[in-house]
Amino acid sequence: MPLELRTLIGPDGSLQLSQAEVPQPRPAAADEVVVRVEAAPINPSDLALLLGGADLGQAQAARVQDRPAVVAPVPPERLAGLAARIGQPLSAGNEGAGTVVAAGSAPEAQALLGRRVAVLALPGQGIYAQYRAVAASQCLALPPGASAAQGAAAFVNPLTALGMVETARREGHTALALTAAASSLGQMLLRLCQGDGLELVCIVRRPEQAALLRAQGARHVVDSSAPDFAARLVDTFAATGTRLAFDATGGGAMPGQLIQAMEAALLRQPGRGYDRYGSQIHKQVYIYGYLERGPTALPPGLGMAWGVNGWLVFSFWRALPPERRAALQARIAAELTTTFATRYEREWTLDELLTPEALRACAQMATGRKCLLRLAPDGS
Amino acid sequence: MPLELRTLIGPDGSLQLSQAEVPQPRPAAADEVVVRVEAAPINPSDLALLLGGADLGQAQAARVQDRPAVVAPVPPERLAGLAARIGQPLSAGNEGAGTVVAAGSAPEAQALLGRRVAVLALPGQGIYAQYRAVAASQCLALPPGASAAQGAAAFVNPLTALGMVETARREGHTALALTAAASSLGQMLLRLCQGDGLELVCIVRRPEQAALLRAQGARHVVDSSAPDFAARLVDTFAATGTRLAFDATGGGAMPGQLIQAMEAALLRQPGRGYDRYGSQIHKQVYIYGYLERGPTALPPGLGMAWGVNGWLVFSFWRALPPERRAALQARIAAELTTTFATRYEREWTLDELLTPEALRACAQMATGRKCLLRLAPDGS
Repeated sequence: MPLELRTLIGPDGSLQLSQAEVPQPRPAAADEVVVRVEAAPINPSDLALLLGGADLGQAQAARVQDRPAVVAPVPPERLAGLAARIGQPLSAGNEGAGTVVAAGSAPEAQALLGRRVAVLALPGQGIYAQYRAVAASQCLALPPGASAAQGAAAFVNPLTALGMVETARREGHTALALTAAASSLGQMLLRLCQGDGLELVCIVRRPEQAALLRAQGARHVVDSSAPDFAARLVDTFAATGTRLAFDATGGGAMPGQLIQAMEAALLRQPGRGYDRYGSQIHKQVYIYGYLERGPTALPPGLGMAWGVNGWLVFSFWRALPPERRAALQARIAAELTTTFATRYEREWTLDELLTPEALRACAQMATGRKCLLRLAPDGS
Repeated sequence: MPLELRTLIGPDGSLQLSQAEVPQPRPAAADEVVVRVEAAPINPSDLALLLGGADLGQAQAARVQDRPAVVAPVPPERLAGLAARIGQPLSAGNEGAGTVVAAGSAPEAQALLGRRVAVLALPGQGIYAQYRAVAASQCLALPPGASAAQGAAAFVNPLTALGMVETARREGHTALALTAAASSLGQMLLRLCQGDGLELVCIVRRPEQAALLRAQGARHVVDSSAPDFAARLVDTFAATGTRLAFDATGGGAMPGQLIQAMEAALLRQPGRGYDRYGSQIHKQVYIYGYLERGPTALPPGLGMAWGVNGWLVFSFWRALPPERRAALQARIAAELTTTFATRYEREWTLDELLTPEALRACAQMATGRKCLLRLAPDGS
């Protein structure tokens, strides 16, 4: 029987990652297809669900149903936020690529039969499994000759980067800022902005990340570890007219600091009288990740024309009209090995991943480096 | 020469409130009118600009150009946030009512000649003056027989309450929450929601405020001083389906607590599987005031489908299409003495207001009680 990865936090606060045998899925509706999943990336967003904040320093190898497994304790202070998942074995993995081996009767499903596709999982659906039944609309047919590794990350990062550009355009911006900008996503967004004529302000945390992005042609890079970070941010926002940022840190001071710098850049414009409500021009931060777990602190004095919102690529995708989805999918397929290319540093099979060493390596991957999980044998 | 009130913070950190003689204004454009301002409310939002955070406990009577004036020190820790206004004499007052005594040649200006109007000041324009030239579009013709006192507060609170209802409708809500709900604004919004069939969750800080609102027919009142406040908030949001709140506190924990309670109410719905991104239903808090001056703290665990935005009635008003503005103005005029009535506890002339005692009384007005400033002699 096919295998799938399961992540379970028990009532005792211990995380268990294991492999479960599950029945071979079949198309349950006319528009469904069954994908033999060949490869899937391990994104930071996947790790959060997979590891549940467990302390990997204390992880131990185990065996469940005679296959490799791992157990690790979740620190008590993190358990409160995880109450809703305790005792529920969950599948994980937001995306992957594989080959369609069965299809329902609908034309859009039949059209994919035998094709290699990228798959975007629905919430709760987890793609770290050897076979998955999904709706045809969750699939992107890869161009002929594309490998599973090339297509594995064709959804989350490409759609996130495209969603950021689309959001910027829709809200009338010609510049946007990104934190954690040296990530795979950041590098992808940089290529996209370079091609599309948008100014990207790249905010990074270390000088070597700044150098990496400059080597890729980034024109506006600000390093938050520099002593003059706050002033440089205002200067850069003023020079580029940046009033939109996507922030990966979520908690802490960064979202508020971004708005504060945008407001300071606006108030610097000559000829402004005093207005106690601040600038009337809207400033926006979208939080798309929570690298920092603490509360988000917004300082006073931001004026009244600002917004801080959560931003989830799945919600962006769902809200798109079908013709726009098709256009974005076509673009991803066409630029899969250029704009949207992802490089992998390491790869593992399920057996290999479920060891303390591999999980620690995965969790410690430096910015911009990624791991690939190999699932069903690659049919190519 | 006509008088106007001036608020000035000097480089030494002292606030001075005084009366200045200014030239009689004339219509400077075809669409302008000159209003003899007869009465103006002293709203909490006016006090912030007027007093600049000065310590009224140390206020002293003074005389400037042989008229009553007041000086008071601004605590040093507040001066940093006021740097942009130091040394600039500012006018104050967001709204008022009076009679149009001169008009430009445009038909919309001529139509107002001799009429009593309510006036909404533009940023920097301050209505605490005996005469003001304003655009006809800043005026609302009051119904015949309305007094200046009845029309003085016809703009800010009525438009704020109408803007909240309009925002709720536009964003698809059938319920909304308001903090500081026992204020004049809150009582007005309650009447509006009762008439318009929207559920209003009134959040107050004291039991007697809860009683006041219940006596006016409020069905959902939550008292933040009660020990079970957090649980009651979730219950009330769940019962009413509230996913929108307007918050007057701004700083501190309240905005985050509102979203947290909305999210908890949504996650309580039966049949929900675990989703680490939280509920997919959008939750929104608009901050329309900063009764609390500290940073705004948003706790982790809000999910990804939420927004916190500044909200300013002037921006709402400016963004409305002209026909919608006309409709709202007509409604305010029609319901001026019912839905949109404001009661005044005290009233002062300019000379009377500019004493330490009157300013202290103004600043200490309890929730829901208001002061009126009498300017040019009432022409009625």
